[in-house]
Amino acid sequence: MASRIDTGLSTATKLPAEPSLTSRNQSTKSSTPSTQSPTKAPQKKHNHASAIHKVAKVSPLSYDAPVVPSFFGFQNLMALMLIVSNLRLMIENSRKYGFRICLSCHEISREDLVLGSILYFSVPFHLLVAYIIELVAAQQAKSSLARLQTRPNGNGHVKSTHEAQQKTFQVTWYIIAFAHAVNATLNLAISTWCVYYHIFHPAIGAAVELHATITWLKVCSYAFANRDLRHALLYPELDAGLPDLYASCPYPENITLGNLCYFWWAPTLVYQPVYPRTSRIRRTYVIKRAGELVGLSVVIWLVIVQYASPLLHNSMEHMHKMDMISIMERVLKLSTISLFCWLCGFYALFHSFLNLLAEVMRFADREFYSDWWNVSTVREYWTSWNKPVYAFMKRHIYSPLVGRGVSPRMAQLLTFIFSGVLHELLIGIPTHNIIGAAFAAMIGQVPFILITDPFGKSSSYAYRVTGNAMFWLFFCIFGQPIAAMVYFFSWQKQYGQWKDK
Amino acid sequence: MASRIDTGLSTATKLPAEPSLTSRNQSTKSSTPSTQSPTKAPQKKHNHASAIHKVAKVSPLSYDAPVVPSFFGFQNLMALMLIVSNLRLMIENSRKYGFRICLSCHEISREDLVLGSILYFSVPFHLLVAYIIELVAAQQAKSSLARLQTRPNGNGHVKSTHEAQQKTFQVTWYIIAFAHAVNATLNLAISTWCVYYHIFHPAIGAAVELHATITWLKVCSYAFANRDLRHALLYPELDAGLPDLYASCPYPENITLGNLCYFWWAPTLVYQPVYPRTSRIRRTYVIKRAGELVGLSVVIWLVIVQYASPLLHNSMEHMHKMDMISIMERVLKLSTISLFCWLCGFYALFHSFLNLLAEVMRFADREFYSDWWNVSTVREYWTSWNKPVYAFMKRHIYSPLVGRGVSPRMAQLLTFIFSGVLHELLIGIPTHNIIGAAFAAMIGQVPFILITDPFGKSSSYAYRVTGNAMFWLFFCIFGQPIAAMVYFFSWQKQYGQWKDK
Repeated sequence: MASRIDTGLSTATKLPAEPSLTSRNQSTKSSTPSTQSPTKAPQKKHNHASAIHKVAKVSPLSYDAPVVPSFFGFQNLMALMLIVSNLRLMIENSRKYGFRICLSCHEISREDLVLGSILYFSVPFHLLVAYIIELVAAQQAKSSLARLQTRPNGNGHVKSTHEAQQKTFQVTWYIIAFAHAVNATLNLAISTWCVYYHIFHPAIGAAVELHATITWLKVCSYAFANRDLRHALLYPELDAGLPDLYASCPYPENITLGNLCYFWWAPTLVYQPVYPRTSRIRRTYVIKRAGELVGLSVVIWLVIVQYASPLLHNSMEHMHKMDMISIMERVLKLSTISLFCWLCGFYALFHSFLNLLAEVMRFADREFYSDWWNVSTVREYWTSWNKPVYAFMKRHIYSPLVGRGVSPRMAQLLTFIFSGVLHELLIGIPTHNIIGAAFAAMIGQVPFILITDPFGKSSSYAYRVTGNAMFWLFFCIFGQPIAAMVYFFSWQKQYGQWKDK
Repeated sequence: MASRIDTGLSTATKLPAEPSLTSRNQSTKSSTPSTQSPTKAPQKKHNHASAIHKVAKVSPLSYDAPVVPSFFGFQNLMALMLIVSNLRLMIENSRKYGFRICLSCHEISREDLVLGSILYFSVPFHLLVAYIIELVAAQQAKSSLARLQTRPNGNGHVKSTHEAQQKTFQVTWYIIAFAHAVNATLNLAISTWCVYYHIFHPAIGAAVELHATITWLKVCSYAFANRDLRHALLYPELDAGLPDLYASCPYPENITLGNLCYFWWAPTLVYQPVYPRTSRIRRTYVIKRAGELVGLSVVIWLVIVQYASPLLHNSMEHMHKMDMISIMERVLKLSTISLFCWLCGFYALFHSFLNLLAEVMRFADREFYSDWWNVSTVREYWTSWNKPVYAFMKRHIYSPLVGRGVSPRMAQLLTFIFSGVLHELLIGIPTHNIIGAAFAAMIGQVPFILITDPFGKSSSYAYRVTGNAMFWLFFCIFGQPIAAMVYFFSWQKQYGQWKDK
């Protein structure tokens, strides 16, 4: 019994399993439909008459194909085409500019190096000062505790004593906090002033400013964490319980120079009296990470000198004339280079360097980032690409604000404002150009988070792909190259061949 | 009970499930290891001292990470970067060359169009001649059959009669084959001569030559298939059995003009008296396929005029000077354009056009290609990218040769030689340049098949990726653009601005 093929979707999708079809004579004669018995394999002698077309089939790329074909080959092709097109650009660059790498062509002056080194090695003294402040605070806490424990037990009396003690604690905290603030701010202020007015080379300036900022954040964390540990010590009845992890080093036993030094070098910005630790240092692991770090740094430097630098110089004319189409073309060309440097830099810093530090310090929590490249919302990005900073912001800024009644949205805005100021310090100060672009970029994240939230994890696959594409476009394909061109242009207007034009 | 973290691979892979670690005081004091009880969630008041780092964790990109992270985001990024870099090249092209599309700028002469049309419409007359030859052959077969059936039954007499009949069959076949050969060869020879000497424009010449070649192949298939059908009719005792599909139109009932016309227009090169059919023509389907075909053809034409043409012209200087690095740079730049045209052309021809034809002819077997983009060997490529031609080659050349005792390797070589000659006709004749590049390219497939066979389907994933990458590299990234440049250069040397240089 033959059955007709309905060339609509439903039947076509059953194909090609059953040869149930209407085999009609191509001439106009009608004939009985073919049977469903399987075709006998023809003998060799009838090769020329073998039935090639036996059953109905659908083209693989048809919308009514029974299975969607794999596109494994096209993924390989995309990677190959990227390599090929960039190889071509490298050949073109080499023909235009020759070999630009020159070890002695840097503009790093001796003064910059000396001042930079002095600042770099003096900044840790602020940690020592912070330690001393905490030592004093710990002593004061211990005597408070002694006084608390010798008071007679009378409810009213104890209660009023507690209120008085709380007040004393607060007043003491303000004094401690003030001391810490002066110490920490001096650190940042001195570095900032020196870099802005006395260190010309932006790379050295950025390294110094980064070191100062990290130290500032660590001092803040040290101060805030110890405050809460001190409070837990003095008022255990108000205490919900500190993590069990800390039991091996209860406050104030953690206020030691060794403990602080560990925190100084540990790959984290949040202070804990105790951290999860590994048992040994793997030598090959350290060597590999160090090799990656050095190798990638060299590669990034080479790419910037050979490819980014001529491109940025070429863009200046267009920036000056505000020739938008040409600027767009330059941005798109720069985006490949900046993306490559970004990815290498991310791996070098967050994977190689931090893991190297963690291995040497036997620091066990290596989750410095998660798979940020898969994010489909800006919110996911900021919580996954730089976990040390995210942990700091959450623990010392966002959560305390929310805990004190600030709305999550306002707390988020304040956190990004804080982050914006830090970014402006790290970029605007070394380039001697506080144009506010970095700050604006950070504040701009807040509305951007709102826009992209609908594309989050619970959305359909198509939404997630769209969100992910939007992330790459705004951050890496347009955002970073435009920022680079803006700062480069400002630098050139100030110090370079575009000065006073 | 705490257990030490061995920072070697095995234990790290168990992380971060269990917080079993050595939590040691950061100072040099030793302490009892931490317990395994879970950490209590801190109250709001101890935000600043909450334990961020509680358990040992591994970075997602570490080789000892418990799960390999997804790279979904990087696949999106690759696609975006390809779009972005090509968009930039389009902007650069538009600045350099302006808008090159010009409907009246073609070099198509009236004479070319007229001669091309005459050839195009006259070629089918050879099919009519082939039909007449088969009609005569069928008549002859019917009378032979009648004679066979009236012979008396005596073993020796029947046997010798059979041998005599076989001989007569062979002789008759040689006469029929000769007639077909003259008819078919005249078709191809006339078209080839006219295109080579009298049709200037290579596109028109290629269209005419392609039509003639397809008709030639169809005539061959018609002749060979009917020979075997005739043989099966006359000698059923030697017959292993024809496909059941053919039962609805047994030889010689298939020798009708209608039957041949169907074959003429059907999207296949292999003749069958009966094909699987669909029940109706879907109008929207036809319109969509026609729209795709026209749209893609326009896009290909635009891309060639705007992007490929200036690039090819720019390459001529380098080709002339044999400046290999520059040629390589040009080849890599052209490869994106040629790949784009290739993929569009493949879709337009093998999917849109053939499905359009199949729908109109109610032809049910739409498997014109399979997922050739996933192949990891050249053998797989040739059996999956152009199934109509593959079916012809296999049924009418390869299998009969092997069936007659030729080794598979020799049969394969002969098949590619045949294919090479056809490719040379299709490319060399319209470009008036029989340089043998197309022929060489086809013969070169044979060693290439041997080289890539180890990367086949049974290999590991890494092998298959490598094989697939090799396929793309040799065919599309180097092969096609180099071939295009070679033929373009030859054309320019003959007719263009490089004439006599």
